[in-house]
This record gives sequence, structure tokens and C-alpha cells, in this order.
Amino acid sequence: MFNIEIAGDSHGKYMMGIIKGIPAGIKLDLNYIKKDLKLRKNTYGRGKRMNLEDDNILINSGIYNDLTTGAPISLIIENKGKNTENKERFIPRPGHGDYTGYKKYGIKDLNIYTERNSARWTVVLTAIGSICRQILELFDIKISGYTKSIGYLEDKKEYSFEEIEDYSKNNLYILDEEFYEKAIKYIDEIKEKKDSIGGKVKIISKNVIPGLGSYSDYFNKIDSKIGKYFMSIPSVKGVLIGKDKFKELGSDYNDEFIFKNQKISRKSNNVGGIEAGLTNGEEIEVELSLKPIPTILKNMNSVDLKSLKNEKTSYIRSDNVVVSSMVPIGISTMSIIILEEIFNNFGDDNIEFIKNRYFEKKGF
Amino acid sequence: MFNIEIAGDSHGKYMMGIIKGIPAGIKLDLNYIKKDLKLRKNTYGRGKRMNLEDDNILINSGIYNDLTTGAPISLIIENKGKNTENKERFIPRPGHGDYTGYKKYGIKDLNIYTERNSARWTVVLTAIGSICRQILELFDIKISGYTKSIGYLEDKKEYSFEEIEDYSKNNLYILDEEFYEKAIKYIDEIKEKKDSIGGKVKIISKNVIPGLGSYSDYFNKIDSKIGKYFMSIPSVKGVLIGKDKFKELGSDYNDEFIFKNQKISRKSNNVGGIEAGLTNGEEIEVELSLKPIPTILKNMNSVDLKSLKNEKTSYIRSDNVVVSSMVPIGISTMSIIILEEIFNNFGDDNIEFIKNRYFEKKGF
Amino acid sequence: MFNIEIAGDSHGKYMMGIIKGIPAGIKLDLNYIKKDLKLRKNTYGRGKRMNLEDDNILINSGIYNDLTTGAPISLIIENKGKNTENKERFIPRPGHGDYTGYKKYGIKDLNIYTERNSARWTVVLTAIGSICRQILELFDIKISGYTKSIGYLEDKKEYSFEEIEDYSKNNLYILDEEFYEKAIKYIDEIKEKKDSIGGKVKIISKNVIPGLGSYSDYFNKIDSKIGKYFMSIPSVKGVLIGKDKFKELGSDYNDEFIFKNQKISRKSNNVGGIEAGLTNGEEIEVELSLKPIPTILKNMNSVDLKSLKNEKTSYIRSDNVVVSSMVPIGISTMSIIILEEIFNNFGDDNIEFIKNRYFEKKGF
Amino acid sequence: MFNIEIAGDSHGKYMMGIIKGIPAGIKLDLNYIKKDLKLRKNTYGRGKRMNLEDDNILINSGIYNDLTTGAPISLIIENKGKNTENKERFIPRPGHGDYTGYKKYGIKDLNIYTERNSARWTVVLTAIGSICRQILELFDIKISGYTKSIGYLEDKKEYSFEEIEDYSKNNLYILDEEFYEKAIKYIDEIKEKKDSIGGKVKIISKNVIPGLGSYSDYFNKIDSKIGKYFMSIPSVKGVLIGKDKFKELGSDYNDEFIFKNQKISRKSNNVGGIEAGLTNGEEIEVELSLKPIPTILKNMNSVDLKSLKNEKTSYIRSDNVVVSSMVPIGISTMSIIILEEIFNNFGDDNIEFIKNRYFEKKGF
Repeated sequence: MFNIEIAGDSHGKYMMGIIKGIPAGIKLDLNYIKKDLKLRKNTYGRGKRMNLEDDNILINSGIYNDLTTGAPISLIIENKGKNTENKERFIPRPGHGDYTGYKKYGIKDLNIYTERNSARWTVVLTAIGSICRQILELFDIKISGYTKSIGYLEDKKEYSFEEIEDYSKNNLYILDEEFYEKAIKYIDEIKEKKDSIGGKVKIISKNVIPGLGSYSDYFNKIDSKIGKYFMSIPSVKGVLIGKDKFKELGSDYNDEFIFKNQKISRKSNNVGGIEAGLTNGEEIEVELSLKPIPTILKNMNSVDLKSLKNEKTSYIRSDNVVVSSMVPIGISTMSIIILEEIFNNFGDDNIEFIKNRYFEKKGF
Repeated sequence: MFNIEIAGDSHGKYMMGIIKGIPAGIKLDLNYIKKDLKLRKNTYGRGKRMNLEDDNILINSGIYNDLTTGAPISLIIENKGKNTENKERFIPRPGHGDYTGYKKYGIKDLNIYTERNSARWTVVLTAIGSICRQILELFDIKISGYTKSIGYLEDKKEYSFEEIEDYSKNNLYILDEEFYEKAIKYIDEIKEKKDSIGGKVKIISKNVIPGLGSYSDYFNKIDSKIGKYFMSIPSVKGVLIGKDKFKELGSDYNDEFIFKNQKISRKSNNVGGIEAGLTNGEEIEVELSLKPIPTILKNMNSVDLKSLKNEKTSYIRSDNVVVSSMVPIGISTMSIIILEEIFNNFGDDNIEFIKNRYFEKKGF
Repeated sequence: MFNIEIAGDSHGKYMMGIIKGIPAGIKLDLNYIKKDLKLRKNTYGRGKRMNLEDDNILINSGIYNDLTTGAPISLIIENKGKNTENKERFIPRPGHGDYTGYKKYGIKDLNIYTERNSARWTVVLTAIGSICRQILELFDIKISGYTKSIGYLEDKKEYSFEEIEDYSKNNLYILDEEFYEKAIKYIDEIKEKKDSIGGKVKIISKNVIPGLGSYSDYFNKIDSKIGKYFMSIPSVKGVLIGKDKFKELGSDYNDEFIFKNQKISRKSNNVGGIEAGLTNGEEIEVELSLKPIPTILKNMNSVDLKSLKNEKTSYIRSDNVVVSSMVPIGISTMSIIILEEIFNNFGDDNIEFIKNRYFEKKGF
Repeated sequence: MFNIEIAGDSHGKYMMGIIKGIPAGIKLDLNYIKKDLKLRKNTYGRGKRMNLEDDNILINSGIYNDLTTGAPISLIIENKGKNTENKERFIPRPGHGDYTGYKKYGIKDLNIYTERNSARWTVVLTAIGSICRQILELFDIKISGYTKSIGYLEDKKEYSFEEIEDYSKNNLYILDEEFYEKAIKYIDEIKEKKDSIGGKVKIISKNVIPGLGSYSDYFNKIDSKIGKYFMSIPSVKGVLIGKDKFKELGSDYNDEFIFKNQKISRKSNNVGGIEAGLTNGEEIEVELSLKPIPTILKNMNSVDLKSLKNEKTSYIRSDNVVVSSMVPIGISTMSIIILEEIFNNFGDDNIEFIKNRYFEKKGF
């Protein structure tokens, strides 16, 4: 059974991931993963820690003579960033897990919650998804994405998949050049202000066979999985599938069918490739809204949990903007979701058996 | 272990639900559930079937002498709506599960996918959630909601929980009277046009203890569960937690702490009651975007899957607007999520033990 | 995803079951299920309640025009047995769930634990398994079993599958005639003594393709599932896979390979058809040890939980021997396990796709 | 939610484990784990690889300032044993995963299945269970075990928990001195013969509060979990709970209650501490039957999967007897099961809250 697991502390020795249920006989390319990890790391506006991390990755198990074996694939990535300070900390940062962690576990030193847990685990999520995406390529499936907005700056254009496929031409994964230039300036201003900013990204998947997922088992609906996976990622506060056209009438919103050139196709793709919990063969479109990063250089109002006096937060190393890093993270996340559905639908033995059946069904 | 299961076909004999992991010793009120089912059923704009259904509910197991026993609680609701026609159907309705079901299972008679599966199962979801909400009342937790928009009509005001608590004063669960009158007219127009419309609802939970959920186990984050549960509900295409203020700077968005009147409180609640996968003690705010119902009286362009000719869809009995029904459904769904977290955090034996510990921790 | 759920109280209105993840396009025979339920009910030594129950079963959902739809299949069986008494009960019967239920939930009236929970749920387990076994017949898989021992009476012969295939020639599912006659007398004596007795049954599956299960994901090993499923059944205290030849040397125990008649075969089947968590193509043999039923007519020593005085238990309606009923229950349980593995290995869409691939792989 | 995950290849760089759902505030002792790993490794009759492995273990995450943080605990153990040969291998060893792995995945080089998967993963299982057992000590729970038989040699005595508590006085975890001396000689003979042998071990848990588990949710019954966990361990073919007294009448087998010294106690413990899926407060007794190790120095009859000719197997480094190693492995496994039930019953926040509630309930 396909399943993933992730562990590791933000400044512990290693980050670790496990993927189970991968069929045997698949060749994996380590450089493919490294490239994705770089795309996650090197966006404009990220903090100094990103210079420390090389995100060198080891595939520790599940491979023999270059082929997957069916055994759990385990990944190890060393953390280079070390804890910069060790003194106890009692003033929770608003928006972070300091206060809520304290309320769950009752231990006052907030380092336990924040130093040891952060969005660092998305490096493993990205690596796992990168493996999944390599496998999806065997099925001709492509996944890409781009930065749709940063703060009040927004790119309202609609793009074809071909236009977004090579999204990493700049370090913000912005497709429109004018928007890019404004965004760089805007981020510089925010850095100056010791502040942070959120935004939106879009993740699009192409060439997925229709009929993946479930139309009746609610938590195996592909949209339910999209909600579950993306809402687990730090900073993501909103998930939207398809076009934001909910003010339209049904007759306008509905994606009518048309038969031409010996093919059933659609006049539009407002539902974003998913109908009734199943893929419909059109591009799967997911839009994610990210809140600004909570940790900022600017001091914020807070309360010392020990003295119960009003105090200012003190700075902890952080990024200013992570919106664009969500593009490769989101592509990886989407890859995990789709690959799981393929194995659920076509089984988990040998990749050649699975591929044969997938393409046979694609033609039907 | 808390878990729910739902089965039943839209026009089969019974809808059925199972809730596992409910502690022993809880008194359940059947009328409480019936009231919630009525709220789901009787909103303006729903179709004729709703007049047929009485949603009479039987608690079939898990109760002895009026108290829960710890055994699975099972629910049975009889379907009164019968299949109005039985002839084979080959023309998929855009937006529905016809085409995608066909692509998964390969059987051409689309009745198999649509007659037998629909949003009818949300009647069980509502009933299950209604049981959960009764139990949440033992913990002083309250959940309510309202209709925020229907088509292009939107209510942009912010309300206190007290203002929305009694949301069912009208049959659209709209708080603003002017909006309500416009909405009724608007829906009448849409009916006339044989069309449908979507919208937004907001679900708010009050008095939830901080620290429920997980800050490190991604799929046990409470936001991940919100994504998973709500995205499984038909028509829901967008889920947003907290305020839609993602254009703001971190320093504005962050909900600063303040200590006054011997209590730690917040200046705002932009994150909507969830930080780092855990509840933070503030109101949990979830906003849902619903697409228009796909089945409309107006004929739409489609393709006959047998003849492969372009054809118009034919009408199948349906609603015009279901947005407001999402209010009680959403309240029930949120109840399920929160109750599961309480049992995860405080155990599953006897409700008195659990309550004692909950309130002990609340004070800490 | 294949999954089962069961609910219902022993003397509640209905017993209920749900099976999810069944592919579309399968024809189910209700009489097939009824026959299995009768085999479960009509064994010698069962109590009076079995005369009351007709185990009439309704397939409530997941079927359209005689074919499965892919939606959850739900089953309903009415309980005819009613609670014979309603007065509170404070004296726990040793071996039953009275005392342990009380210790978990803290409510003193033991009816809550025992009247409402019993082995009655195995009627649903049997029905679910009967559906699974019908589907397994599409793959040429056969499952049967027999009573190996009752109390000190034991049948030590080894049988070929053909000899056990038609196991229900007598009402104890005993293959050896002499053993059968002794067993009937023995059970009569035990009834006379107001006592109960346990025993052993053997469940054998034939024609299962090799390679089902997992060799590296421990809880998806087929032996792990055998342990999990069978140990959940009331009275089962021991599960053994293969032959009880653990005193032999590896060189004797190991099932050596031999190639003859253009086929790889084995000299023996001591491992009982499972190697390293996977089926190996040989017959899967499972032996179950059942303790005597705890509820007996004879009064036993116990303690009144309210007065804390030593008291005798009072009688509650029960069976004397259920060992042989475990044969159809066990066959059903094994059917569930094997079918789940087939869907995990070959997917869950349409039965024709799955069958094609199964038989293709069988030949390889 | 409590969950464990294990990955790593037998001769890969690292073995890895993850435990989720551990409360915050627990101090863990690394030496405690190391001691358990040594007990697993250093039994008489194990192969040469055990001399290579030092089983040095790193707790990689989930700890801050010596206390657990609530985040996933991850473990890393380096493999010292290297692949001794790398040439392709086509002759499956009977009893091993060679043939079944090939049948699942279709790749002919059997190294993929056997070199990379073996019982090596039980080193991580032992380490995870060792952490769990440390935590169980906070609840006064003790778990021990011993070797009950090796081949035809068997120890039929019944021991008190105190007699088995310090089980590691000799390197076979045998309690009876005469049996020990015979066993050493017997194993030496088997080595000489280039053969292997199986046997039985017993695992006993003391001081577990009654009422843990579930009496109605079948797969959360504690006996179902015992079946699931133990049957996943290589070589285990039989699991038996309580005493092997299934030939006795109910009136003899049943463990009658008696009230004396102000305490409810039992006259016997034939059910082995579990009634109706729940612990009953008595010692939990589990007996495991292990088959002989399949890999033996003696050549066995097999078939070359490539040439399809009858061939002899060739030797691969292995142990002769692993029965006694199953004692610490089984103790660890049982620790995992019981700890999971404690968290299910009492929650997962801070160990002090959980302990308080556990002991409060213990007194009730």
C-alpha cells in the first residue's frame, strides 16, 4: 500500500522520509530529485539558512542495481543549519506553533515546539514527490506550476500548460516579466521593513487519465486528498480546485462536452479536472493561498508565558517570502496524490505490468 | 478509535451510517438530530425530492437505556425518493460523475453512477455530525454558520458568534435582511431560467480549547482534516481557513498576543483559530466555496457515449441552489473533526473521565 | 480502497455491514450468501436463539441492475432474538466481556457490555466474506474447511482439498464418520452437564496465485492480516499457519522445489502456502484454536460488583459448542483477506480489467 | 496518533524507524535501548553477521533537552554487514521470499528480494519497542519472556513473572538449567549438520490496567493487534494467547472471580489476560511458534528460474537458531501494542497528564 512518512527536526542531524508501496523495476534519477530540491531552496526572499543547506540526499533503501525493489524507499537529508541559540524562550510568536504547542504539551520552553518543528520537513515532502513525479513521467503525466500573486501583486492571466511548463526561468517562478520586476522590488521593500508577505500559487497537472479516484468513498475522492495534503503544508490557508468562477450560473460554469476530431473534449475546464471525486482527463488545477510567514524581524506584541507580562517577540532566523518555494513543493505534493491513485487503480506489483494496463485503459 | 462510515444509494432503500469510538455514558437526543436534518432539507431553492423525504432516523445500535455503550453507533434513514425512470442513459451531464464514473468503471449505462450516487449521503454526514455536536455541547463548544454569498450577491460584514448563533431565522441562513430579500428574488429568477447557482458559506466554532490537533504529524493537523473532510463534500471546490487577508504584511496579518484581565488574548483572529496544525483557542473559521449544481433543467451540450454523436443532456430531478444547506452540513462536518481531536487528545473510555480531564486542562 | 465495517447490537433491530472498494460489474447471488449464513447457524450444539433467527439478508446498496456499481455495498440483517430480561446485572461472567467492559467504561450494569455485544456480529462477517468468496470464484479460487477437534476428540488425518471441499455433509463439519458419532454423543453429554467445550478448525484456500501480499511492508504481509482478522473473532485464542511441525529440522520442514511436467512444484506444504508475507501458490492452511464458550448454564464463582460479595453467576441464553460454526465464519474471513490482496495487487476499477490481468499474470 | 514505520535494506547503509504520537515530556535512556538490542543479537546459534553489527543507535529527532517533544521520534542504526557477493542468483531457497518475491514483481535476479529484505528490520522493531517499554515503566508495567522450546526440547513448567523477569542469565533465555545444557548441545549438533531449528517462546506482561483495548471494534481488540503484530515477524507461524487448554470444559477453563483481601481476583489465568478484546488486569500471555530458519548450509532441492532445471540451492550467510532472539523482539513488540492502547485510552498530550489519569483510573 502506498504510504509516506516523514520525520526529522529542523535542526536535528537528519531529515528522513519513507515511501512504501512503490512497485519494483523502476529506475530513479538522483539528479532529478536534487534539481527539485534546488528549486525549493533558491527562491528570492528566503532566509540565510538556505545558504547553509546543500540538501544532499541519500536514497538509503528500496533500490538494487539501480531498480526499485518493492521495499520501502527511504531518504536521508542532512541538516547543516544548527541551532543558533540555546537559551530558553517563553514569548510566543503570533502565528507560529509556540503558543499552541505549549497548550497541547504544557512545557514552557518554546524551543521544544519551534526549533524542533518548522517547514523544514517540506524538503522531504519535495524529495518524495520528486520520486513520484519521475514515476509519473512513465505515464506521460506532467505537473507544473507558477506564482500567481505575492501580496497585492497578482497575475490574472490564464496560461496554457506549455507556457508554464518551464516555470523556473526566474527565481520567483513568475511568468509575467513586469510582475517579476515589481515583485523583486516589493520583496526588497518588505525585507527593509523587516516584514513578510504571502501570496498564491497555482499547480497544474496534465495528461492524467480520466477515472482516477473514487466517486463514492468520500476520503478517497481525489479532491478530498488534495484538501488533506495541501492543508497540511505550513502557511497554506486556502485551497481551491479549478477556476474561481463561483458567481456564474450553472449553465456558464459547467464544462460542456463536444465530440470532434474523433475525441470527446470540453469547451472549458472550470471544475479544474475533477468531477465527483474522479479525474476527468482535463488539466487538474489547484490554487493555494499562503499567509505571510509569522516569524518576522520586526518585534511583535506578545506575552511572556512565565511572567505573564506583555513583552515584544525577539527575532528568530527566518525567510521573508516563501510563496514561490510553494511551486516545487506543490508540484511534488500533487505528484504524490496522483501516483497514489494510479497504484490504487492499477495495482502495485511491477511497473511494466502497471504501465501496460494504464495505457490499455487510456485508449479505451 | 473514532471513525465514521457512510453507505447507501440515493434511491436505495436505506441510507446508513456508522460512528465508532464514541465513549460510553452519553445521552443522545434524537430530536436534536432531526432538527439538524430539517435544517439541511428545508432551504429555499432545493428540488421536489426534498418534499418526499422525511429523513426519519433510527439509532440502531450503540445505545442501551438511553446511554451510549462504547459500541459502534449505527444510523438508518429510509429513502422515500424513488427512481423516476429506469431507462438506460448514455449522455453524461457536465460537472456530474457520469463521465468520470464511466471512465473508471467502463459501464455505459450512466444510471449506475448518478442515480445511485449523489449528495444524498450528506444526510448521514449531517446526522453523524449532529451526534458529535451534541457531545461537543458537554464541552461547552458551539458551532454555527451562515450563508455568505449566493452567486454575485455577497455579505461582506464580519459577525460576532452571538450574531450568527441562531442562523436559521430564514430559509437561506442569511443574516442580512436586505441580502435575504435579494437572494430570494435571485433564486426565483434562476429557477425561471432553469439554471443553478453556487456561493459561499462560513462555519465558525467557538470555545474550543487550545492545543487540539498536532503540530508535527501532518495529516493529523487540524487544518489537514478540515481540507480532507470539506473537500469530500459534493459541490465544495474551495476551502479557506481564517480571513481572506493574504495581501497584508505579516505584521498586519499576525494575531498579536495581549495579556489583560488576567487572560492571554489576541488583537485579531486572521488565522481563524488554527496555528501550526493546532487549535489556538480563538474561533475556528472556515469558508467554503460551492460551485453551481451541475444538473440543470436547461439542456446542455454533451455527447452520446454510445453513438458518439453530439447530443443535449436531458433533465434529471435536481435542486437549483444548495448553498444554504451547506450551513448545517458544514456545522456537522466541523463537529466531527473537533470531536475526533478531543478523543485523540483525551481518550475514549467514559465521558465523565474525559470531561473531567478536558476541563482540568482548560483551566491550565 | 477495500475496507469493511460492521455494526449492530446483538439484540438491536438490525445487524449492518459495509464493504467498500468492490469493483463495478460483478453479479452477486443472494442465495449464495444465505447458504453460508445457514451453515454458520445450523451446527449441532448451538443454543435456542439460532431457531429464532432467519438471517434474512438485504443487499441495500452498491448494486444496480444486478451488477455492482463500485459504490459501498451495504448489508442489513434483522435480529429476531429479543432481550429476554431487562433487569440490571452486576455479576460478571468469567471469560466474557462483562468485567473488562466495566473496567473500560465504568458503568456497573453489565447488560451494557454483554447484551449489546456478542459474537452475533459474525453473521455480518460471514455475509461479507460470502460476497468476497463469490468474487474469488471468478478467479477460480476455492476456500473450504472442517472441524479438526472438539474438546479431546481430534481428527489427525491430512486431507486433500477435494476431500474437504464439500464439508457440510453433517452438522458438525466433521469429515471422519467415527469422529462425528463420538462428537455428537460428547456434545450431548456436555449439554447435560450444562457445560461448554472448544476445539480446532482448519481453513484451506486453493488456487491462489503466488505473489499476493507484501514481503517488506509488515502489516501488509498476508500472515499479518491472517493474525489480525482471525484473532478478532470471539473465542479464537490461537492461529497457526501451515503444519504444526516446528520440532523438525529446517532440512525436513522446508518445502523443496521440483520441476516436473513443465511446472515448478513442491515436495510438501509445511509453510501452509505463505512465504515471506506472500502467497506461494500452494494451499493456504490456517488452523484456529477456540476456547470453550464462557457463558454456561452451570453457575460459576464470581463477585457482585455492587455489593463486592462473592456470588454465583446466573444463566444467560447461550450455545454449548460453536467450534463447527467457525468453519463457515473462517472461510468467509479468509475470503475477505484474499480478495483484499487481489485488489491491492490488481486495482479496483472493473472486474473484467482485473480478471484479465490476474489470469495474464497467472500464466507468467 | 501513535504509529510506527520501519525502513532499510538488510545490507543498505542504515536501518531506520519512526514512532509518531509519543507525548511530550518523557526522558529516554539510550542505554536501555542498546541493552535490548544486545539481547536480540547475542543469542547462541546466530550467524557470523551478528559479530559484525554493533547496532549503534542514534535518536535522530523528537527529543529536546533530553525530553520528548511530541514530534516524531526517528531512529537510525548503521548496517555493518555488507553484501558478500553480487552475482545474480536464480535458484530460490525454499521457505524464503525468493520465489514469492519473484512471482509478485517478475524480476529474476533473486538478490532483489532476499539480500535487500530479511529479518534485519527486527532490529528497529526491537529499538522502537524498547522506547515503548521505557515509557510503560512509568505506568509500572513490566514485560518479560523466555524460550519455551527449541526443536523437540521443551520446558513445560509454569513460571511466576518473578521467575522469568531476569530472563537473560544465559544466552538462550532458557530458565531451566538442564534444558539449557541440552539445548546448547543440540544446537551444536545442528550446526554440525548444517541445519536449522525452530521452537517456541513465551511473552508475559504484568501490571497492565484492565479495560485497555476495545470490546466491539474488532481490529482494535487487543488480541487482533497481537495477531497482526506478531504474525508480521519473520519465522513466526503460530500465535496463541493464554494457556493451551482448549480440550477442557468451559467450567474448568473459565477463570472464576473471587473477592478476597478487598480485591477482585481470579482462580486461574487461562485466557491469558484478555477477555473480549480488552485486558482484564491479569498477566497477558502470548506464546509464539517459530519455524526453522529457511536458509541452511545444507544444499536443498530447488529449480533454476532461468534454465528451469532442477538445481541445488547454494549457501547464503545465515543463523542456525533464532528462537531465543524472539524473546527480546517479542517483548518489544508487546510493548508497542500495550503503549498504543494506553494512548488510545488516555490521550497523547503530556506524559504527566496521562500518568495522572492512568493511576486515577487504576484505583477505580
